[in-house]
Amino acid sequence: RVNGDRLWDSLMDMAKIGPGIAGGNNRQTLTDADAQGRNLFKTWCDEAGLTMGIDRMGTMFATRPGTDPDALPVYVGSHLDTQPTGGKYDGVLGVLSALEVVRTMNDLGIKTKHPIVVTNWTNEEGARFAPAMLASGVFAGVHSLDFAYNRRDPEGNLFGDELKRIGWVGDEEVGARKMHAYFEYHIEQGPILEAEAKQIGVVTHCQGLWWLEFTLTGKEAHTGSTPMDMRVNAGLAMSRILEMVQSVAMGEQPGAVGGVGQVFFSPNSRNVLPGKVVFTVDIRSPDKAKLDRMRAKIEAEAPGICDALGVGCSIEAIGHFEPVTFDEKLVTAVRTAAEHLGYSHMNIISGAGHDACWAAKVAPATMVMCPCVGGLSHNEAEEISKEWATAGADVLFHAVAETAEI
Amino acid sequence: RVNGDRLWDSLMDMAKIGPGIAGGNNRQTLTDADAQGRNLFKTWCDEAGLTMGIDRMGTMFATRPGTDPDALPVYVGSHLDTQPTGGKYDGVLGVLSALEVVRTMNDLGIKTKHPIVVTNWTNEEGARFAPAMLASGVFAGVHSLDFAYNRRDPEGNLFGDELKRIGWVGDEEVGARKMHAYFEYHIEQGPILEAEAKQIGVVTHCQGLWWLEFTLTGKEAHTGSTPMDMRVNAGLAMSRILEMVQSVAMGEQPGAVGGVGQVFFSPNSRNVLPGKVVFTVDIRSPDKAKLDRMRAKIEAEAPGICDALGVGCSIEAIGHFEPVTFDEKLVTAVRTAAEHLGYSHMNIISGAGHDACWAAKVAPATMVMCPCVGGLSHNEAEEISKEWATAGADVLFHAVAETAEI
Ligand SMILES: NC(=O)NCCC(=O)O
Ligand SMILES: NC(=O)NCCC(=O)O
Repeated sequence: RVNGDRLWDSLMDMAKIGPGIAGGNNRQTLTDADAQGRNLFKTWCDEAGLTMGIDRMGTMFATRPGTDPDALPVYVGSHLDTQPTGGKYDGVLGVLSALEVVRTMNDLGIKTKHPIVVTNWTNEEGARFAPAMLASGVFAGVHSLDFAYNRRDPEGNLFGDELKRIGWVGDEEVGARKMHAYFEYHIEQGPILEAEAKQIGVVTHCQGLWWLEFTLTGKEAHTGSTPMDMRVNAGLAMSRILEMVQSVAMGEQPGAVGGVGQVFFSPNSRNVLPGKVVFTVDIRSPDKAKLDRMRAKIEAEAPGICDALGVGCSIEAIGHFEPVTFDEKLVTAVRTAAEHLGYSHMNIISGAGHDACWAAKVAPATMVMCPCVGGLSHNEAEEISKEWATAGADVLFHAVAETAEI
Repeated sequence: RVNGDRLWDSLMDMAKIGPGIAGGNNRQTLTDADAQGRNLFKTWCDEAGLTMGIDRMGTMFATRPGTDPDALPVYVGSHLDTQPTGGKYDGVLGVLSALEVVRTMNDLGIKTKHPIVVTNWTNEEGARFAPAMLASGVFAGVHSLDFAYNRRDPEGNLFGDELKRIGWVGDEEVGARKMHAYFEYHIEQGPILEAEAKQIGVVTHCQGLWWLEFTLTGKEAHTGSTPMDMRVNAGLAMSRILEMVQSVAMGEQPGAVGGVGQVFFSPNSRNVLPGKVVFTVDIRSPDKAKLDRMRAKIEAEAPGICDALGVGCSIEAIGHFEPVTFDEKLVTAVRTAAEHLGYSHMNIISGAGHDACWAAKVAPATMVMCPCVGGLSHNEAEEISKEWATAGADVLFHAVAETAEI
């Protein structure tokens, strides 16, 4: 079994870096706080005797050697970056539990045939630079390095410049590493495990996603002196599209979601009708047919909504992943570990995207999940118990140990 | 007649300060650009032999003496601050035409019984600090100085601190000055004069306004892993309220408008359902009954819309003025001047709020308007011709000269 107290202490130490405003964290990717978090993690890896490699996306790979020089490593990880008002566990639990796995192996003098690589992927959240899971996407060959370096945050800063600024551009070619397997342990971020009173989610699939960025063009005009029939009201068009997205998602129940988290009005002044409204629609489903049908419906209906108001409408797909089916053998290893350890468990589909979804393109991959209170995540109030954290880390330890061949 | 070329040159010189990004201006109140604009205006006033007084709201009063030491002054002015993406004429035309009136009087050696005070009111736009027409509101006793000093911009800066920072806190008690009359010349900011091919708007009324600031409280949650039926979606509630405001305003046609120019999502991240959405509804009508009925309808319907989604809803009225009827004698003076000068004219109701609306509470007041291209304002593309500008300034000159008693 892993050392749950040590894992918890590490979680709490990491949470001190980039504190939020309501008990959570704001440690967005490539900020100074991210750099501090990376330094702390590196110190811990050094202390555990791991060898650090960094690739050109800034992803950190900390290796514990195996006994067979020809055996490919088992990768175990997640991400240390957070949302602007994020929780203490989303991503962090996965990285620090991977570290706890090797710390426990060190304690017990366990040797594995395959090396084990504790991994911290850069920019999983996609909050500062879209799309999410950017570094693992480049690793899996989904995006080019050039595409990633040219992503911009809302202030216009380039990903490539910010990575250089915080001093974490590595020299490894991205994706050059080959994996025997990839494991990722994560909080569920949804309500199912808690509602079903299960300690462990055996993650069989991950739902697919589209991010559709809308740019609506209205006419900037005075809210007082512009008669109703002369308005070209991009804000009203945005409202109608949000309502339409809601009804498209409701029409595909169960097994589909759709919503909008980000809206920019321009110039965003109380007495100016917006000349431009930019927002991103987030739609997801584990069923590729539903996912693509939602996108098609939204893209079919939005132009009509805008035309009726004289508003210009352009739509760009700025994020996408297909639904993923995780590796059967690894999924079985997770389920067997949970059973062996006596933890209650159930199969679950990940509602959020994870680096495991991209890793699955280039290696056998799967995930372990633990419940979170009220299914709440992407919220500073995100919470889990030490017992939940420990149970998942135990399962991770056993599944990794089996796959890396003790 | 005034010197239209000189007026136009001054407009173009002022427009160089705080340039926008599309040919207009960003000279928001109490910014460094505002300070620069004030300095240039002060230089011009000095050159015209005027004596500058500043009150504790930073409003600038530049006096040309009259011949009767007991006669109250005629005030003529508007504002030099702009929207973040504002035009070159909104407000500025009124201040610089007032200056042109005294420059012309100087040229012609005209003496008036009443002094003339060229006035630049602080923070008319209300873009950076709500409400609009803040300094004239304090002057008219509608707001306290303390209320004004404690207004905050979106970054959290206090009005009082920013006024001090740019160095324009005067020592005059606000509102201590008594006015014989107040004139304000402004672009229409709407489409009527151009459509009717009239050179001069004789402004008889100004429509009233409510700014209703909504704070909707949802639950920050992951857009992917939060099932549709577990969402507390403040963004969706905002959308429904925007649609409702539109239909309330349409239900009061003609003679009413309603819309939303400013929306803040929090945390405004693509994969986080907003925990908070703040936006301001702007409703107006020249008819007090309509105006108050719109407010009542909106405040009656919004809570139900929010309740249905489990969203918290609080509404604060952060801006208000009643419909105004301008002084009959001054209105007649404007109409007579237009007729005398041979300019085409019509009566018009101001769609926007103006400092004249507050001045009207403490003195006889009225306005002169000129057309603007396409009725466009609060837009960097705001445009007028030199001929339009000059015609209005001529009318202002004659009406002021008559009222100040040559
Ligand atoms: N796990 C997680 O929140 N990832 C961010 C990408 C997503 O929106 O699913
Ligand atoms: N004239 C003008 O645009 N004033 C700003 C206040 C308002 O929104 O009416």
